[in-house]
Amino acid sequence: MNRIYKNQDGCPVAETLDVIGDRWTVLILRDLMVQGDRKFGELQESLRGISARLLASRIKWLEQQGIIEGVRYSSHPPRDTYRLTRKGLDLRPVLRSIAEWGYKYQLDEDERAAWKAPWTRVRRT
Amino acid sequence: MNRIYKNQDGCPVAETLDVIGDRWTVLILRDLMVQGDRKFGELQESLRGISARLLASRIKWLEQQGIIEGVRYSSHPPRDTYRLTRKGLDLRPVLRSIAEWGYKYQLDEDERAAWKAPWTRVRRT
Repeated sequence: MNRIYKNQDGCPVAETLDVIGDRWTVLILRDLMVQGDRKFGELQESLRGISARLLASRIKWLEQQGIIEGVRYSSHPPRDTYRLTRKGLDLRPVLRSIAEWGYKYQLDEDERAAWKAPWTRVRRT
Repeated sequence: MNRIYKNQDGCPVAETLDVIGDRWTVLILRDLMVQGDRKFGELQESLRGISARLLASRIKWLEQQGIIEGVRYSSHPPRDTYRLTRKGLDLRPVLRSIAEWGYKYQLDEDERAAWKAPWTRVRRT
């Protein structure tokens, strides 16, 4: 992922955005936090509109960063299910605060009533 | 700003990212939270690498969203200083949690020691 903040070294906000500043990346984390461990196809279905290639690159990035890890569930063909590491689980306050602000300011009444995955249900492993 | 999540309507995470999903936008909010009200030139100096045109478009976007507001300090030429609205101030938990994760996982010891704007100092208006 491009680092656009080379001149912002040492700022913990900018350095976090270098890791999770991509919007699809945040939605992958959302799914793993709200839904639990997910397979590639499950993530792709949830993130309607993402290409398989882009999803694969985001997953690879998050693995390289130590935020998620793959657990093999099939050898032939090789298939992984993805889960958050400790480092990834520590991003829950970020996702939670984003969700809380959006719930307050961005959702209308119908959307609030329909919101199936209240953030309070996020697993507190 | 492009909405890439049309199919994610009703999700408070995706709908928040539609508003603040751009990385420069988050750094503008960071500056207003840590430094207080800022002029255009002050933001541009802090966000080294951003063009005047891009900064102007991000400021306009945040004003349209009701997250920041301009306060005129000069009429000739017209000049504003920018500050967070209530809606913008309510984003502090987002910035704070991002900073805390970055401080823990992304900064090295020297950077932590040099970090001049500890997040605990963010104004609690």
